[in-house]
Amino acid sequence: MNINRRGIMLVIASPSGAGKSSITRNLLKSDNNLTMSVSLTTRPMRDGEIDGKDYHFKAIEQFNSLKGAGQLLEWAKVHDNYYATPKAQVDEMIASGQDVIFDIDYQGTQQLYEHCRADMVSVFILPPSIKELHSRLKTRALDSDEVIERRLKNARIEIEHWAEYDYVLINEDLAKTSNEVANILKTSRLARIRQNGLANFIKKLQIEIDEI
Amino acid sequence: MNINRRGIMLVIASPSGAGKSSITRNLLKSDNNLTMSVSLTTRPMRDGEIDGKDYHFKAIEQFNSLKGAGQLLEWAKVHDNYYATPKAQVDEMIASGQDVIFDIDYQGTQQLYEHCRADMVSVFILPPSIKELHSRLKTRALDSDEVIERRLKNARIEIEHWAEYDYVLINEDLAKTSNEVANILKTSRLARIRQNGLANFIKKLQIEIDEI
Repeated sequence: MNINRRGIMLVIASPSGAGKSSITRNLLKSDNNLTMSVSLTTRPMRDGEIDGKDYHFKAIEQFNSLKGAGQLLEWAKVHDNYYATPKAQVDEMIASGQDVIFDIDYQGTQQLYEHCRADMVSVFILPPSIKELHSRLKTRALDSDEVIERRLKNARIEIEHWAEYDYVLINEDLAKTSNEVANILKTSRLARIRQNGLANFIKKLQIEIDEI
Repeated sequence: MNINRRGIMLVIASPSGAGKSSITRNLLKSDNNLTMSVSLTTRPMRDGEIDGKDYHFKAIEQFNSLKGAGQLLEWAKVHDNYYATPKAQVDEMIASGQDVIFDIDYQGTQQLYEHCRADMVSVFILPPSIKELHSRLKTRALDSDEVIERRLKNARIEIEHWAEYDYVLINEDLAKTSNEVANILKTSRLARIRQNGLANFIKKLQIEIDEI
């Protein structure tokens, strides 16, 4: 039996290196009804990037006009470029029962909360220890010591906001944590507030009783 | 890593015949951290019943005194006997991280909500159709036509209250629905509001960062 339901806006946040990207990848692979939110950006397209897939690339004037019209659910300025979540595409997906995952920090989460708290489920991923986080950041070998130090400082700020999330998971084991997030998503789909086909189904049951 | 958490008060409600008892039995079998709440009653003990296991059998004076002292989370009068949920035992279990399942109707649920909404997760089970519910009630062969008719009338009243529950499940397949409730329980354990050991864990992470 399929009851109509609203989609879920799933926010996964974490300090850099706690495992967010791997968990998101696992989820997208294992769950057919989940898609990644495509952000809008004013930064120039890079080689290999596809407009509408990696980002919606927009001119600064378009960004400003969407922002002025209340058409951005959240936005941020990073290194002179703007990044944002366009409202229209999210609205449409959620209304049609499509679940969307968001890769945003606590400031983006706070902005989304203002607009669409009831559709959101937010998950915060923590490392088991900072020693572990530090060593994961170093193992990546992508970043200089300076960058790693900046990431750790940012981690401290990000972690300050743990209490703003619905679920907090400590990522000791990637498979286990990915499975926990998958279960959070499955369970959230069963929440009454999302199943907007229920009222009709209940009416049908009541009529059936009255006709006996 | 074990973070201290509060236990969950899991309420499963449904019209009679929708599968609540079987689901509860499956859950209690599959989940070691879940126990059934033992009600208090003023009705006489029956053959084979064990005080403290089937019910806490109490005299009417004791019931009145507990009620007067605010020591009952919910109570109801059924056929001249009183039934109630004693507060002390639930408080103790929840504080120690033990999850407790409650077999109560919508009126009991409403009373529990008044006292301990934050600790509760409530699930409402619906039959796929009234035809199915009717035939399940008849198959039991325990009840006269008159009793079945009364149960259906009560079902109509109970179903009216579907919108007061956190989750609403349509029980088409017992194994599937039992699994859904098990997932709801597992997921609810990960909710931030229950993990009252998190604040300390976060403090430890922050100190680790500051010491680098």
